[in-house]
Amino acid sequence: MSLLVIGTLAYDTVETAHASRDRALGGSAVYFAVAAATSCQPRLVGVVGDDFQQEHLDDLTSRGVDCSGVERAEGKTFAWGGRYEPDWNTRHTTFTDLNVFEHFDPKVPESFTDSPFVFLANAHPAIQLKGLKQVTGKRFAVADTMNLWIDIARDELVELLGHVDGLILNDEEARMLTGLDNLHLAAEKVLEMGPRYVILKKGEHGAFLLGEGLHFALPAFPVTEVVDPTGAGDSFAGGFMGAIAQADSIDHDVLKRAMLHGTVTASFCVQGFSIEDLGQRGADDLQARYEQLRSICTV
Amino acid sequence: MSLLVIGTLAYDTVETAHASRDRALGGSAVYFAVAAATSCQPRLVGVVGDDFQQEHLDDLTSRGVDCSGVERAEGKTFAWGGRYEPDWNTRHTTFTDLNVFEHFDPKVPESFTDSPFVFLANAHPAIQLKGLKQVTGKRFAVADTMNLWIDIARDELVELLGHVDGLILNDEEARMLTGLDNLHLAAEKVLEMGPRYVILKKGEHGAFLLGEGLHFALPAFPVTEVVDPTGAGDSFAGGFMGAIAQADSIDHDVLKRAMLHGTVTASFCVQGFSIEDLGQRGADDLQARYEQLRSICTV
Repeated sequence: MSLLVIGTLAYDTVETAHASRDRALGGSAVYFAVAAATSCQPRLVGVVGDDFQQEHLDDLTSRGVDCSGVERAEGKTFAWGGRYEPDWNTRHTTFTDLNVFEHFDPKVPESFTDSPFVFLANAHPAIQLKGLKQVTGKRFAVADTMNLWIDIARDELVELLGHVDGLILNDEEARMLTGLDNLHLAAEKVLEMGPRYVILKKGEHGAFLLGEGLHFALPAFPVTEVVDPTGAGDSFAGGFMGAIAQADSIDHDVLKRAMLHGTVTASFCVQGFSIEDLGQRGADDLQARYEQLRSICTV
Repeated sequence: MSLLVIGTLAYDTVETAHASRDRALGGSAVYFAVAAATSCQPRLVGVVGDDFQQEHLDDLTSRGVDCSGVERAEGKTFAWGGRYEPDWNTRHTTFTDLNVFEHFDPKVPESFTDSPFVFLANAHPAIQLKGLKQVTGKRFAVADTMNLWIDIARDELVELLGHVDGLILNDEEARMLTGLDNLHLAAEKVLEMGPRYVILKKGEHGAFLLGEGLHFALPAFPVTEVVDPTGAGDSFAGGFMGAIAQADSIDHDVLKRAMLHGTVTASFCVQGFSIEDLGQRGADDLQARYEQLRSICTV
């Protein structure tokens, strides 16, 4: 069934201890859509500037991503720069040029409004809600967020949480949002704020899902050579939501399998800059690593 | 089958952000033996001073721990003091009075030398090896260690690693021992140093086991109220080795179940000071939480 993502298309400038990339294809919706495209044909809503290369849109389209919701606006595409410390856990944002994303007003095409599965990639929660409200056919909507919005737009974020079925966030964000150090208690508190499910990501330590009587935890896939962690969270979300859209169900078994699928997808993402590794991976690669992860965590 | 532990009996003075205990029963071998005693009758080798209360030995004996290898020496029992920061991850050692443990020379009673399963709790690796060599019947020996020995007794530790079947260590110790940041690579490097298995503990993030073609990872049990983390590692080891001794096997399924058993055991330990919570738990409590953990991590 159809999966819609609303988020950014961007050019990322990334520096690690080993290598760097200048203005590589990035953005939350790009990572998400490429990740989800191994399971379904995701629909993408976003905005790009006049500098966005047509070949990048063509590449997404060739992967089965429906880009008819990508608006081209006057100005430059959202650009972001980051630098990672050798431990990978510390990331410094070197610049954030919102450009055309600054006035992003999501317009969901009429043909997309029946999407049952929706992912609201990281954006101001008021923008996320504005996008979501146009999707009249939504059955299962999941949002991402970040510390910036928890800090400066908490009220709007809390309002959004009353309208989504799931929230994906990392350990630091969960602690910041709830004021609780214990991640399990923090996840429970997020559920009290509205969503039926919370997915709490812990980077190299894996992730867990809580909600509706289900509690499922799993380790990260043991990647031995990280190249660039950028996009790992969005790839996780894309793999997770793609598996759900493909199954057209959110029963507990599907959610568990979707967690594995998301974990495996993210593991490919971090093995390359941009979508250099992830974009090469087909269903067979995913399945092989899925089985490997399953064997690692099955008693 | 018989399980032998060589380690410390101690009095711990622990302070947390919420409460404190003065000279409470502690020590690696105590935590280990109490944890293992739900699965088997562990044999204990250690030393206490003349201040060690007979009632504490009686308590261990009443749990099925064979204390005939506990030597009483002139002087005071090993005493340790620690203080935890509110985040639990930072521990300050306030004092370490080795006392009678300073000249600990492990003497394994003749009746214990046939023990097939052996745990060498944290001690100077030369002492650990001296103890191990007396256990002529050992089939599966696992050692613990700490950053101090990695720092000041690396050669002896490396020698010990050539004589044990498994090493249990935490993330920080693994990085320190191998010089590798990536925990999976660090675990692989530990295996190259001798043991057939390595168990890498990551505190609230769970643990994984690697070796002999097996890779098994699992999350920590989600404890929502930590009282005192002291002894968590030794309780894990006690639960792990106890399950192995009970099964009298180290096949892969047993090792996986032992990892769950260790995880669950440690989760009780941290819910109280000393053995206040762990010591109350019987096989039923363990089984219930074991099934809960199994459901959390089974796809």
